[in-house]
Amino acid sequence: MSDLLRFLRELSEAARAVTLGASVPVADNKAGEGAYDPVTELDRAAERVLRATIEARFPEDGIEGEEYGVTRSEAARRWVLDPIDGTRALICGLPSWTTLVALVEDGEPVAGFIDSPVLGELAIGWQGGAVLHAGGERPLRVSGCRTLADARLATTDVYLFNGDEVDAFSRVRNQVPVTRYGLDALAYAKLAAGSIDLVIESGLKTHDWSALVPVVRGAGGVVGNWQGGTDLSTGSIVAAASDQLFEQAVRTLAA
Amino acid sequence: MSDLLRFLRELSEAARAVTLGASVPVADNKAGEGAYDPVTELDRAAERVLRATIEARFPEDGIEGEEYGVTRSEAARRWVLDPIDGTRALICGLPSWTTLVALVEDGEPVAGFIDSPVLGELAIGWQGGAVLHAGGERPLRVSGCRTLADARLATTDVYLFNGDEVDAFSRVRNQVPVTRYGLDALAYAKLAAGSIDLVIESGLKTHDWSALVPVVRGAGGVVGNWQGGTDLSTGSIVAAASDQLFEQAVRTLAA
Repeated sequence: MSDLLRFLRELSEAARAVTLGASVPVADNKAGEGAYDPVTELDRAAERVLRATIEARFPEDGIEGEEYGVTRSEAARRWVLDPIDGTRALICGLPSWTTLVALVEDGEPVAGFIDSPVLGELAIGWQGGAVLHAGGERPLRVSGCRTLADARLATTDVYLFNGDEVDAFSRVRNQVPVTRYGLDALAYAKLAAGSIDLVIESGLKTHDWSALVPVVRGAGGVVGNWQGGTDLSTGSIVAAASDQLFEQAVRTLAA
Repeated sequence: MSDLLRFLRELSEAARAVTLGASVPVADNKAGEGAYDPVTELDRAAERVLRATIEARFPEDGIEGEEYGVTRSEAARRWVLDPIDGTRALICGLPSWTTLVALVEDGEPVAGFIDSPVLGELAIGWQGGAVLHAGGERPLRVSGCRTLADARLATTDVYLFNGDEVDAFSRVRNQVPVTRYGLDALAYAKLAAGSIDLVIESGLKTHDWSALVPVVRGAGGVVGNWQGGTDLSTGSIVAAASDQLFEQAVRTLAA
């Protein structure tokens, strides 16, 4: 395990060497006409260095990256990469974008990290633990918050909810004292650190959610879907600081 | 002017000495039952040090602070203070909270700053210029973006809009490629820095908007209200990177 954790740190440093301190990049639109999904040269450059670092060390592993797709799809182990999660934040000069890496074995994310280069905060998680590297190193632990009445809620963009999701999210929002927006994966790192208690999102892709699973679970939190199950493939995510809070959020979403 | 700018830096440093590196504070609710307006001991401690620093240097000036109200209301010059703008972000362990100070003469904010201690970014503005202190010092200049079709829009919380404001804001949002949320006054510092182009909010109080006026205008931007006027006392704010963008936003809000 310590070899793997050391390699995860090495990966985060390789990506930071590309992304940190770069000027605010200009975005291309990869969604085509009528939609908008920004990508920058920095996204691509960071994924290239992550891929090269992984391939040098584990040449037989598969890689699935947001920008360059799947390599060696038949491999038993796969690295899932989002070189810059929060490209919208990045092109607005905001600090909340992160680099996400997950190691997936038999479909299960077993280790990974959420790295915030601007904040200098690297959250690494695995099956059994999670730590924050920020200057020093300290264990990550969720707050343990058990009820919506005390919960600090986060979601990235309320306009990403579709149809009934809008009302479902509003029911939860109306029961919590504080809701914060626009954080992308940083919200899950803060959940693992104990300063956010609940994150509810939908429409996430594999490269968006894979890395947050080991970080949140390793810190003692719960990650599941809006129906209360553990299948995340639909991209609807509820992540909570306790089982009780998770169940209350799921009930409230369904009510 | 350089004396004043030096004093503004001194103020920002005095507040940072209190706020920076403190652990995530617990919030009290100052709104009373049925509502929620968080305040922490850090808000109060930061305002006390700002007040003490101002009173030691300019004992005849008035002070209006979010936490401790108005002192010497009859004074010709008044310092308007928001020791922590974005207390919700602070209690969620997020980096986007700022300290706001404005110097107001005859009702007009003539100088001020937006300081982000976590990011190490102090944006100072005055009538005629604006600079960013972040390690070194560099001039602040808005992007000059002239059309909604290219604009990066920010607002703090779409649930803060009331009645017709919801649809008005949506009309603008539907015309821009990127909207970011949850930034409080940091959005205006990023507008001054050229990485956000348009900020639209409502319900701001005097201590929320006073400091952003000299920073945005000093960087070449426009600050007005939703009707296109310059009276900000209603707390409805449009801040833009050019006259053309400001006017297009105002027309679209009214449409």
